[in-house]
Amino acid sequence: MSEKGGEKSGRRPVALVAAQAAPRTRATNYPEPFASRMAGREKRPLGDRFGLSNFGVNLTRLSPGGISALRHAHSKQDEFIYILEGRPVLVTNAGETQLAPGMCAGFKAGTGDAHHLRNPTGADVVYLEVGDRTTGDEGSYPDDDIQAVLGPDGKWRFTHKDGTPY
Amino acid sequence: MSEKGGEKSGRRPVALVAAQAAPRTRATNYPEPFASRMAGREKRPLGDRFGLSNFGVNLTRLSPGGISALRHAHSKQDEFIYILEGRPVLVTNAGETQLAPGMCAGFKAGTGDAHHLRNPTGADVVYLEVGDRTTGDEGSYPDDDIQAVLGPDGKWRFTHKDGTPY
Repeated sequence: MSEKGGEKSGRRPVALVAAQAAPRTRATNYPEPFASRMAGREKRPLGDRFGLSNFGVNLTRLSPGGISALRHAHSKQDEFIYILEGRPVLVTNAGETQLAPGMCAGFKAGTGDAHHLRNPTGADVVYLEVGDRTTGDEGSYPDDDIQAVLGPDGKWRFTHKDGTPY
Repeated sequence: MSEKGGEKSGRRPVALVAAQAAPRTRATNYPEPFASRMAGREKRPLGDRFGLSNFGVNLTRLSPGGISALRHAHSKQDEFIYILEGRPVLVTNAGETQLAPGMCAGFKAGTGDAHHLRNPTGADVVYLEVGDRTTGDEGSYPDDDIQAVLGPDGKWRFTHKDGTPY
């Protein structure tokens, strides 16, 4: 049993073992050809399990060669990561930064500094990621022909940079 | 050096070693006789170091006998914890739950379920705590004669439960 305090038919646990939380059923929202690039990534939603709605927390695992996301910046939502296992490379507008367990990084909304993690090692990377759910957010992707707008329904709409749909 | 990417006169680092982040200069906002009860607690703000404003993330250490806070519930702000080291006891309205490294818990705003951690062991407890910054939040404390309202300036006002000031 991963949960303490009981978990039946949606009842919220008091606490849980993060690594035993269920993975997200939908692996990615990206359209192809980007979705396939997320094959080495697995996200376990943690905050949602407790009914949290103001921010999300995931336990995310990157297999060797995996990446956290397309390199991106948010217009309104802040993000934070804390490395639990492995040695990923953080890529930002400033270049590459080597991370290790116990290191953290934050990505302030609206700066235009785009980020992602990649795992160039032969071992898994495991980290916690936190992001808030401010409405009206937009995602920009300096390395790829894609842009994203968060709809009023909380779902992302992806288009090419000229606005044509995927 | 704890920072990667440089940190001078308020410049934001790209990443940092969480355990080497500076502790919060003011140990607690509680009035006495409650402030003294937080002597075994040390918080290192992490999200603030990167300029994040939508939520806060702290690396918090509880010495043997320490507690995370007075047992409390928030009206509007969600909270989340992830245990990195040690074996604290989580106290909620449901009673006591034993935690261990790799376990997490979330505290949904508005439920009235009050929580705190205590460290009954002889070893330190270290955990990450996340909380958003929704305005108009209030804190309620079932075990103590105190109540809290978050002012428009982002500072907490503490009173006795009959409204008289501390």
